[in-house]
Amino acid sequence: MFMYKPTISIYGKRNAGKSSLLNAITEQEVSIVSSIEGTTTDPVKKSMELTPVGPVVFIDTAGIDDKGELGNLRIKKSLDTARRTNIAIYVMDILDIDKEYLNNMEILFKKYNIPYILVINKIDMVDENYIDKLKLEYPHGIFVSSTKRINIDKLKQELIKKIEEVEADPPIVGDLVPYNGKVILVVPIDKQAPKGRLILPQVQVIRDCIDNGIKCYVLRDTELKSGLEDLEDVDLVITDSQIFKKVDKIVPKDIKLTSFSILFARHKGDLKKLVDGVKTINTLKNNDNILIAENCTHNTTHEDIGRVKIPTLLQKKTGKKLNFHFKTGYDFSENLEKYSLVIHCGGCMVNRKEIQSRIMLCNEKQVPITNYGVLLAYLNDILDRTLEIFDY
Amino acid sequence: MFMYKPTISIYGKRNAGKSSLLNAITEQEVSIVSSIEGTTTDPVKKSMELTPVGPVVFIDTAGIDDKGELGNLRIKKSLDTARRTNIAIYVMDILDIDKEYLNNMEILFKKYNIPYILVINKIDMVDENYIDKLKLEYPHGIFVSSTKRINIDKLKQELIKKIEEVEADPPIVGDLVPYNGKVILVVPIDKQAPKGRLILPQVQVIRDCIDNGIKCYVLRDTELKSGLEDLEDVDLVITDSQIFKKVDKIVPKDIKLTSFSILFARHKGDLKKLVDGVKTINTLKNNDNILIAENCTHNTTHEDIGRVKIPTLLQKKTGKKLNFHFKTGYDFSENLEKYSLVIHCGGCMVNRKEIQSRIMLCNEKQVPITNYGVLLAYLNDILDRTLEIFDY
Repeated sequence: MFMYKPTISIYGKRNAGKSSLLNAITEQEVSIVSSIEGTTTDPVKKSMELTPVGPVVFIDTAGIDDKGELGNLRIKKSLDTARRTNIAIYVMDILDIDKEYLNNMEILFKKYNIPYILVINKIDMVDENYIDKLKLEYPHGIFVSSTKRINIDKLKQELIKKIEEVEADPPIVGDLVPYNGKVILVVPIDKQAPKGRLILPQVQVIRDCIDNGIKCYVLRDTELKSGLEDLEDVDLVITDSQIFKKVDKIVPKDIKLTSFSILFARHKGDLKKLVDGVKTINTLKNNDNILIAENCTHNTTHEDIGRVKIPTLLQKKTGKKLNFHFKTGYDFSENLEKYSLVIHCGGCMVNRKEIQSRIMLCNEKQVPITNYGVLLAYLNDILDRTLEIFDY
Repeated sequence: MFMYKPTISIYGKRNAGKSSLLNAITEQEVSIVSSIEGTTTDPVKKSMELTPVGPVVFIDTAGIDDKGELGNLRIKKSLDTARRTNIAIYVMDILDIDKEYLNNMEILFKKYNIPYILVINKIDMVDENYIDKLKLEYPHGIFVSSTKRINIDKLKQELIKKIEEVEADPPIVGDLVPYNGKVILVVPIDKQAPKGRLILPQVQVIRDCIDNGIKCYVLRDTELKSGLEDLEDVDLVITDSQIFKKVDKIVPKDIKLTSFSILFARHKGDLKKLVDGVKTINTLKNNDNILIAENCTHNTTHEDIGRVKIPTLLQKKTGKKLNFHFKTGYDFSENLEKYSLVIHCGGCMVNRKEIQSRIMLCNEKQVPITNYGVLLAYLNDILDRTLEIFDY
């Protein structure tokens, strides 16, 4: 499930039938529907339950071809919504096919990394031949009539598909920082990083920032202080968790700070469940069994964290004598019920599906699960700060 | 060969024998050699020809344990030299083994990405047993006596080895921008970039910046204008060459601008020869044969540049009808002499050795060679601006 309600914005020229389309989708009179151009001024928001994806928010925007000073303001407000849009619907009136406006909006969607659906509306106003001709030109378009309710269900299905696609590949930082925001990435260079390369999570974070129009200042911990002086209004600092304490001292409290591993705990799995899991630590008793699970078998740096660092810190924190068991690779589900807590690696080498399945397995057997990043943040008393950036 | 003289700085505590060591290496009285502590104040520079690597510069620094206000100034000046040091020699007096100073200097060398040689000096002052014991503790140390000229040749050999290592893997941007400098990377997201990843040259540039303590602002062309407003005194903007013209207009003339492909033309091959090659374009005649050579066979984006874009632009620029031949993969050297110009791809998938061998082959047959990045910069009239950052 999404950790936020997906926002779907409806764009189009004046009178393309945006508000009637929204009403057709939601089957309610959300906006003032009228055929006088430019009725919708401020974007209208409307929530609904879209089965099976859950609650979504629609934004009904003003026409992007509005005229005059007030019109410009309305256009600006409409385009501003793009910053918080997860999926866009672009509506074209079949009687007013305007390629230029469509192209401009496609550029905008690309800029904000928004997947979009092209809807061609009012197909009840023209004959079949004209529709067939246009279908060749816009093969991905969905041809609907809001008033006659033609293909509205098809549009809903397409919307569900798009939402599921976005959900399957959720943003890493893209939804946490506004468009054109500033992020500082603190990348220490140590034995983990192969010569001349960056490790995969770092590359993924940089790419996700760029995809979402977020500017990304990459530097080492030794240059962080100077980097913070270079930029005003930094939205977020992301650091390698191994140097979190050091970075925590350098970054002023009014700037949000999190770690790569917390971002990936959310991206790869379910941050809420992993945080719930870590909070069961103070219920651990002497001789409880703890499972430390890793996906890869060959990472000696992780091995040191899992085999030495975490067991030591955990026993110190709880004051209990705990039994640690270790599993690597795909061997995971056997005898899960005997454990009081599962501590999983960040899963940087496996996909979201694998990690989510493991969280689900633990859930089924009522075994709390957390991961390296969340646990280390908790043990170092910095979990609260790392979570500040999330609506959580 | 280096495009610059490698700088070798000699560090150590007062009286460790830094100046005598330099004299032993250069066999001349460069510094005032004296056993009164703190003689060397301002760093002394000394050039010499180090066979077979060519000219090098030595910097003889003040003691890093200097005392008093003047001492602090001397220390600061000594440590400032690290910014321009390619290789460091750290000298320890065998009668004053000080692990703490060594550790501090190792942190400094790491910060500035400086390979270093540990020299333990004055071995003529102690007995063999003590030396053997220390050799176990410092297995990578070179044990010398400057005054008795023991192992000075061994040190020279080690220095040559280190210089050759640095030379074999030259910096990409590290030597162009000062320590703690600011670089903006303009990374457009297009079909070249696999989903969720960055292309290799971008990763390599980011890593090289970080390794050298250069802060690196990564953003798309659409956010460049805003990014330039965020930072003062940007040292260099590096852009994808395909959007160079657009970026050229956005970046103020007082800020240096170059492209990934020009950086890699230097890193992978020989920028000077590739620039010389491109300048032969105005001597091309009708029906001249041009060889377009690519290392990889599977890159459709490059194929479009090599097969369509470059032939079209080149014929337009020269006004000549040219015959284009294409070679991909490792098939390169056959019939080279029939070509008036070789235009090579950036070679992002092969190593420096392969590209340099190809440049050498062309040189032998007196065929000018250039590459995609240099050629496109030239054809777009922006080559001069891309070269400004180089001492060239």
